[in-house]
Amino acid sequence: MRSVEPIRWTPEGVVLLDQRRLPGEVVYHTYTDYRELAVAIKDMVIRGAPAIGVAAAMGIALGVLHSRAASLEELRAEFKTICDTFAATRPTAVDLFWAIGRFQRKFDSLARNAAQNNLEPIKEALADEAQQVHRERQLADEAIGKFGAELLPSSGRIMTQCNAGALATGGIGTALGVIRVAAESGRKLEVFVPETRPYLQGARLTAWELQQDKIPLTLITDNMVGHFLKTGGVGAIVVGADRIAANGDTANKIGTYAMAVLAHENRVPFFVAAPVSTLDLSLASGDAIPIEQRPADEVTHVHGVRLAPDVAVANPAFDVTPARFIAAIVTERGVARAPYEQSLRRLAQGASAPSPVAR
Amino acid sequence: MRSVEPIRWTPEGVVLLDQRRLPGEVVYHTYTDYRELAVAIKDMVIRGAPAIGVAAAMGIALGVLHSRAASLEELRAEFKTICDTFAATRPTAVDLFWAIGRFQRKFDSLARNAAQNNLEPIKEALADEAQQVHRERQLADEAIGKFGAELLPSSGRIMTQCNAGALATGGIGTALGVIRVAAESGRKLEVFVPETRPYLQGARLTAWELQQDKIPLTLITDNMVGHFLKTGGVGAIVVGADRIAANGDTANKIGTYAMAVLAHENRVPFFVAAPVSTLDLSLASGDAIPIEQRPADEVTHVHGVRLAPDVAVANPAFDVTPARFIAAIVTERGVARAPYEQSLRRLAQGASAPSPVAR
Repeated sequence: MRSVEPIRWTPEGVVLLDQRRLPGEVVYHTYTDYRELAVAIKDMVIRGAPAIGVAAAMGIALGVLHSRAASLEELRAEFKTICDTFAATRPTAVDLFWAIGRFQRKFDSLARNAAQNNLEPIKEALADEAQQVHRERQLADEAIGKFGAELLPSSGRIMTQCNAGALATGGIGTALGVIRVAAESGRKLEVFVPETRPYLQGARLTAWELQQDKIPLTLITDNMVGHFLKTGGVGAIVVGADRIAANGDTANKIGTYAMAVLAHENRVPFFVAAPVSTLDLSLASGDAIPIEQRPADEVTHVHGVRLAPDVAVANPAFDVTPARFIAAIVTERGVARAPYEQSLRRLAQGASAPSPVAR
Repeated sequence: MRSVEPIRWTPEGVVLLDQRRLPGEVVYHTYTDYRELAVAIKDMVIRGAPAIGVAAAMGIALGVLHSRAASLEELRAEFKTICDTFAATRPTAVDLFWAIGRFQRKFDSLARNAAQNNLEPIKEALADEAQQVHRERQLADEAIGKFGAELLPSSGRIMTQCNAGALATGGIGTALGVIRVAAESGRKLEVFVPETRPYLQGARLTAWELQQDKIPLTLITDNMVGHFLKTGGVGAIVVGADRIAANGDTANKIGTYAMAVLAHENRVPFFVAAPVSTLDLSLASGDAIPIEQRPADEVTHVHGVRLAPDVAVANPAFDVTPARFIAAIVTERGVARAPYEQSLRRLAQGASAPSPVAR
């Protein structure tokens, strides 16, 4: 695998880099049972909405590939069980449901033309489709990176949140893809990385990715975000997204909403970078986005060490940033700006949105 | 000691509850050497601006008490060294400098009337003075609690930051004193407690104090503050302070500024509770407040466990909240409101500010 490759399809099964153990240990697991892969998604062996989409795609293909169904009808029933298993893993990341929907349509299309007793072509086609999803994700990241890099200042400090990097997508990353493309084009950028409690994706994953790419960074705790937006000379913020409603309201890692409000207060432009698969135009606004509640021990314990007495804990994994705080949403098809109802619908339909620079 | 008593003057020396080891372990240390007590302040065995003031007062008295000076001039030189040692411990907490200033004036006054070779009366008077500072702190907390409780809603959710409790003052606490008095008067309050990285004073200390007092609480990570101010039905915020400038700008634990901006965005009243000794009217605005930078390993490690790769870290311990975000500043002499230049000056001069309720 490349240095930062969170997921790979192999003949033996789906290989995941265990992100829970980074940066201390670099450990890969090979999943041959789709159920174990679903547990791995839930347990955050792999995380980040786009990467969850790739993992679900590969997981569905894996489940179908290893099915012992003797008929198309048996396979169809098993396919439904497999899809339901993945749908129950992470409720907020819409890329998951996007991948499931794509595979359902693909399965239906293949089934219409299939011979009753020859299921191999369906299995092979779904395995190809999973790898295609991964390739598309990588290409999308590259395009997001190019569109987004144009929005960043020519030098100075950038802030991000959580990890919207290679580990979160399987490509070069969405938010970190933007920063990577900008850095590769010679811009002198430094990145403020909030540690992103409780799961520490910033401290463990983003810091590690940027360090590997030799992009200068400063690690901060989450409660320093406001202070450094006020005093730290931050020129722009780029974050990823887990689900974007039709009006541009964006669910992303907990803390993103606060960062956006503080950016607005301090006149720092706040950009969201995400593939079109993260759009959920079926939701009029962010109020309808389901917010995943995670276990209390992620807050009370770190690496098995208890931090707090045995008290009540809240652990919402995401929050919703109202569209009015978002300067632009960068996708692989171009850059959307307010009013987002129009600009996001155009992008979802496949048209390029106007970029800030003529192309 | 009472259940939550962070500091006590004893004939053997100054006893501190080691707050670094709470809530897991309740351990007391007795300091007989003022230099070791100064190190304990720097290392956060005791913390919280008002408690640091008490600790410095007791530490200066301890140093003088154990002095082997043979003449008043020798004692005066040693007294200066002692004061300089405490002044170098924590730069932001102004109560520290308030205590040093008070002891300098007391020493000068005692020295004017002292016999050259009988230093015992000075030693005894300074030991009394240190205990007097502690008693005044406790009375101030009670008064702050009464004034502040009137500002809280009759029921509902309150948010605080860090630990401005008994552990931070040696009394009932400033912000937590307000919550305690309100709860004791029968109001049904629940408290959102941000864990307050990197040192986890919220998770370790505030959660522990509230649990001991049976006041319901929900522990959250710092990046959930915005989400719960937007969605959690919070009726008011009460925080402590480390230094308040003449215009009301307030230095407090890192993250307070962000909380205040997010409170303003969500129309939640934001109150500061602090004794008059936390006012620094020599500073026109918060821009001049020195911000303590603490070691990187507080961010990269928790309980000795490394959380992040070896990267650059920023660790400012405090931030400054502009006065325009502060609905009121509650002191033991009454409640100050904008314009703070006038209201704080009146309080500093000893007059009661108008309270929200006639008294």
